[in-house]
Order: sequence, then structure tokens, then C-alpha cells
Amino acid sequence: MTKNVLVLPGDGIGPEIVTEAVKVLGTLNLDIEIDSALVGGSAVDATGNPLPEETLNKARSADAILLGAVGGPKWDGNPMESRPEKGLLGLRSELELFANFRPAILYPQLAEASTLKPEVVSGLDILIVRELTGGIYFGQPRGIRTLENGEREGYNTYVYSESEIRRIGRQAFEAAQKRGKRLCSVDKSNVLEVTVLWKEVMEELAKEYPDVELSHMLVDNAAMQLVRAPKQFDVVVTGNMFGDILSDAAAMLTGSIGMLPSASLDKDGKGMYEPCHGSAPDIAGQGKANPLATILSVAMMLRYSLDESAAADRIEAAVQKVLDQGLRTGDIMSEGCTLVSTEEMGDAVVAAL
Amino acid sequence: MTKNVLVLPGDGIGPEIVTEAVKVLGTLNLDIEIDSALVGGSAVDATGNPLPEETLNKARSADAILLGAVGGPKWDGNPMESRPEKGLLGLRSELELFANFRPAILYPQLAEASTLKPEVVSGLDILIVRELTGGIYFGQPRGIRTLENGEREGYNTYVYSESEIRRIGRQAFEAAQKRGKRLCSVDKSNVLEVTVLWKEVMEELAKEYPDVELSHMLVDNAAMQLVRAPKQFDVVVTGNMFGDILSDAAAMLTGSIGMLPSASLDKDGKGMYEPCHGSAPDIAGQGKANPLATILSVAMMLRYSLDESAAADRIEAAVQKVLDQGLRTGDIMSEGCTLVSTEEMGDAVVAAL
Ligand SMILES: CC(C)[C@H](C(=O)O)[C@@H](O)C(=O)O
Ligand SMILES: CC(C)[C@H](C(=O)O)[C@@H](O)C(=O)O
Repeated sequence: MTKNVLVLPGDGIGPEIVTEAVKVLGTLNLDIEIDSALVGGSAVDATGNPLPEETLNKARSADAILLGAVGGPKWDGNPMESRPEKGLLGLRSELELFANFRPAILYPQLAEASTLKPEVVSGLDILIVRELTGGIYFGQPRGIRTLENGEREGYNTYVYSESEIRRIGRQAFEAAQKRGKRLCSVDKSNVLEVTVLWKEVMEELAKEYPDVELSHMLVDNAAMQLVRAPKQFDVVVTGNMFGDILSDAAAMLTGSIGMLPSASLDKDGKGMYEPCHGSAPDIAGQGKANPLATILSVAMMLRYSLDESAAADRIEAAVQKVLDQGLRTGDIMSEGCTLVSTEEMGDAVVAAL
Repeated sequence: MTKNVLVLPGDGIGPEIVTEAVKVLGTLNLDIEIDSALVGGSAVDATGNPLPEETLNKARSADAILLGAVGGPKWDGNPMESRPEKGLLGLRSELELFANFRPAILYPQLAEASTLKPEVVSGLDILIVRELTGGIYFGQPRGIRTLENGEREGYNTYVYSESEIRRIGRQAFEAAQKRGKRLCSVDKSNVLEVTVLWKEVMEELAKEYPDVELSHMLVDNAAMQLVRAPKQFDVVVTGNMFGDILSDAAAMLTGSIGMLPSASLDKDGKGMYEPCHGSAPDIAGQGKANPLATILSVAMMLRYSLDESAAADRIEAAVQKVLDQGLRTGDIMSEGCTLVSTEEMGDAVVAAL
């Protein structure tokens, strides 16, 4: 049966990297139909809405979604409702993509690109499981109000229910079962009540997964430990906000944020796939962007949502091959390697397939 | 006029490191009277209250406060109100110590202790200015409630008023004026309304400090940039929660978190001084803790609250001297140096004075 993939190029370098990823997907000769739609700043420009109804409908009926990136200084002054990010957040929320998987892997070929000492990061392979449709990102009430004394006050609400915590917890425990069987839950339970509940629910769940070793860490300490000894982690599970911060730090440890894919799944395994990096407006349109994170996101998509794991393996092997050939975009360039453009990198992956 | 310093040893390694710092302070022969009181877990054990009335009264009348550290697994199961951390948070809040200064400095003698490559961190000297009495740490409403469907929900409120943002902003701009004249304000203004207001107020303030270059960075990017290129920062200003996370990450970059002091000041410069590190219950009572962060906190105290900057200089010079002598506690130990105990390190600083 034909599978439908919706492609959302988005803003900044989004279109360039998605073009290469789609090219790679096309090379595989799978029974996949590709449609595309607007999201983010480009959707705001065209329709006034970062998540047009048409895009949302297409996303609902697709089997999987491939997203480039959203955002840029052009829309920074927009009111919250017409910011590019609302498009992304709307997709996550409307499609209930609550489970965000962000691997942080050090590619041996890129060991030098890390700012950390080789012995600290060599072989690094962490998976951050971030809750994606709750927490302070979506909590109500929120806004900016004027107080009686005339001054303004901004407020947001950090909220999680037991069931929200439980469903992301299960995803994390199951991911840990398939890996090193160690799960670290990150909270700020010495200050925030919402994370006291988080910790409690994780403890309860642990009884159902006796083969997984659960530990807890405070978020400030987790930020430190990622810098001090990142290899101590196997799977990390945390809420939306902490996950945003820690996954970016973890990705940067590898020195290859341009290499890292991510998956955001709903309860049935339908998913949206995107690179961990952002829209990098400063280099947009210059052919400098690294398309590999998006190409590897296609591999994740094939494996998790399209039941095509052999094809996923092929893409991952092709990426290894171009790295072995010494091909590098600017972000991962090092001495003795060959600097290539976004398109050349895409072509090299296609050739390696 | 005799100055009053209140010493709060706290929990874990707190008593050991404070003992050394008080010894150093005593050596200076200044007109300072020292009193002490209970806070944190040790106060809970003795009185049931992490911030006994007596401690709070003494803190109010003191000219400055020196704190060791609070917290430990022993009290982790306690209800929020009788957790050690409530003692610390209560002091910050009751004394209105809203301005937290956390320098992250790489000591050249300890360059090897960092997990980052030398070229990335050599010469690192960042100041993180963290808002300390507002934000999600203190926002109301907060708690855990039972929903109509019977499940529980945890919630906290992230809130800042314009005046709260303005007063910490001023402190940060003024600190930047005395340093490299660059201030980076960290927010999550693409998602959280409260930080949209934060960013706006910082922009307004910038007009009053034309000699300071203000920039803005999203918190996830800031966590990445601290790992990628920490030397790009001069002064960073942010809210309570983000400041907690980023300051710990920044401190760890230096590899010498056992070396970093901090100051928490009210509007008149009265302050509480404490090491950036925690109570390290795993090594408590073993003479392994590094007392230098606490000793350097005494130096900050002399400079900012007690008008004794010559004495502060002397302490800092003495610390440099013991490092030059190759004396190291376990946390900063490296080949060719001499491993010393907490007490031996304190004695060495006294001898160097
Ligand atoms: C663009 C932004 C809203 C988003 C987030 O904060 O979740 C991004 O930083 C991410 O991590 O996917
Ligand atoms: C002990 C804890 C409440 C405290 C905080 O989160 O502020 C600590 O981590 C700190 O940074 O001083």
C-alpha cells in the first residue's frame, strides 16, 4: 500500500536540506507518495498563519511528516500567535506527538569536531526522551497582564498530569529496554511541585520495568554532568522545557549537531521527523547547510513510521560511507577533509546508496 | 564599627568547608564578629524547620552571611515544606537577595581539569547574573491537585513583573559596564510569554546603558553555545530557573566547580555568599571537599558587603599562591600536584596570607 509522506520545508535552511533528503528518499524506489505544505514563517508570509488549515489536514492524513526547520529574525517581532514556532508547536500538539526522541551520538569520523576532549566523548551514545505536548510549553493560564499598580506581569504555567507523565515514561522505559537498560529521569523536585509528581510517577513505573535501572537527577546537576561525564547516561527522560535545553547541550557535545535527527511520535507510532538543529537563517540559501541530519531523519522515519527498516539501514550506511570518504559540510569540516555544499553532500549520499 | 557575619554551615560538606573559610577570615584580624546558626537539613533535624525563626532573625541583623551548602538524600523524601532547600530559598526570599552573581572562571593552573579542549576554555571568564527571588521558584499558584477524573496534576507558575525584571537587569548592565561591556539576556521568547516581557524590559533598559552591547539568546541555544564557544560571553543575565541550569553548566566548563564562589545581593548590597557547588553528601565528613570556593566566597563578601576590598585581594592572592604551589584537593587533582585534605588546603591558604 502506498504510504504518504508530508514534507514541510519551513524556513531558513529548511528548504535546502529537505530537498536533499527528499532526493535521497526518492532514490530508494519505495512505494511512497510525497506531498508538501507550508509551515512556520513561510506560511505566515503566504497566509498569515504559521499552521494553515490545509497543512494541518495534510499532516493528519499523512503516514509520516518530514520537517526542515522553522523560525528566523524576520518574524521575531510578530505577536506570539503568528510566530513561526507556533506552527511547529501546533503540529506537535494537534497530532499529539508527545514522545520526542533525540539521540546524541558521536560519529567516530567526527570525533575532532567536538569541543570536548576525545576521552570524554568518544563512543558517546545517549538518547534523550523529551515530553513534547505538555509542560510549560502548553500550560494554561499564560500571557502578559497589567497589574493593579499599572505594571505588566508575564506568566506561564508548568503543568503535568499523571497520565501525561506516565505515557512519556513508558516510552522512555521501553527505549531503555532496547538499549543499555538505564534510565535517568531529570527533574527539579527540590523546588518544583510539578516535578515532584513527575518523579513519583517514574518511580511507580519502574516497578513495571524491573529490567531497567531508574535513577533521578536534578536538572542543574544534569546540565553539569553532561559536560563532566556525558557517557554516564544511557536514556534520559524529562519534560518539555528541560528536554529542550538538555537535548541541545547534549547534541552540541558531539560537535555534530548538523548530524543529529529526531523523531516525535504519537501513541500509534505516527511521527514527525526533523533535524535537531534549527533554521540557521544566517547561512540560509548559501548551500552551506549540512543535510545529513535531515537525511538521517528520513532513515528514522522509514524505521519508526513506515516499516521500512532495511531502507533505513541503507541510508545510515550511505551516510557512514560519505563520512568515510572525507566529505564534510562547513559545520563538521576538519583538516584533510573535502568541503562540500549542501547539494554535493546530498548527491554523495545518493551515489553511496 | 564591628561588622557582623552570620555563618550557616548547612549540610553535607558544608560544615567542613565553612570551618576552613572562617579560619581564613579569622587570620585577617578584621573587626568582624562571627555568629552561626542552623539552616537546611541540619535545622530540620534539630528543630523541624529548615529555616528556624532564630536563624532568620540573625540573618536579618547580620551585615553579611556565609553559607556552606544545604541538602542531601536523607531529606529527599520530606514534604516540600521541610526540605533543606526551603531554608535556602526562604533566606533568599525573606532577605530579598534578588541578584545572584555566579562567575565562571578558568584558573590557568587548573586548565587541565576542564573536560573541554584547552583552546575552547583557556582564559574563560564569564559572569552569570541570575534572578534569585522570583520566577518559577516562587510563583503562585503551585502544588499538586486532584483532577475531576481522579488523577493528580502538578503545577507551578513562572511569573515575572516588569519591576522584578528591571531591577535584575540594572544589576546585570552595571556589572557589564565594569567588565567587557557585553550583556547577553537569555530567554525562551519564542514560546514563553513571561520571557517575551523579560526581553522587552531588557531592550528598554539598554537605552539607559548605551555603552553596553545587549544581545538576546534563546535558552536552548545558550546551553549549546556554552559548550560550543563559551568565550563568546561576557555577562549573561537570565531568570531563576534558566540561571540555575546555565550557571551550573558554565561552572562545570571550567573543570573547577570546587573553586567558584557566588554572591546573592539585595538592593543595598547586603549579601549571602556561598560556593557554587552543592552539599556533596557522598564525600561529607571525609576531608575530601575543596574549601576554596567557600574561601573565595569570603573574599567576595569582604569586597561587596564589608567594604574590605584590600582583604579580599589578599585572600584571592593567597588562593593563587596555593594553586601555584601545586596543592590540590581531589576534585582538581592532576598529575604532578600534591593531593591535600580540606583542612590542609585551608591551612595552606592561612599560611599564604
Ligand atoms: C523552535 C522551538 C519552538 C523548538 C522548541 O523549543 O521546542 C525547538 O527549539 C526545538 O527544540 O524543537
Ligand atoms: C539547592 C537549590 C534549591 C538551589 C537552586 O536551585 O537555586 C541550588 O541548585 C542553587 O543553584 O543554588
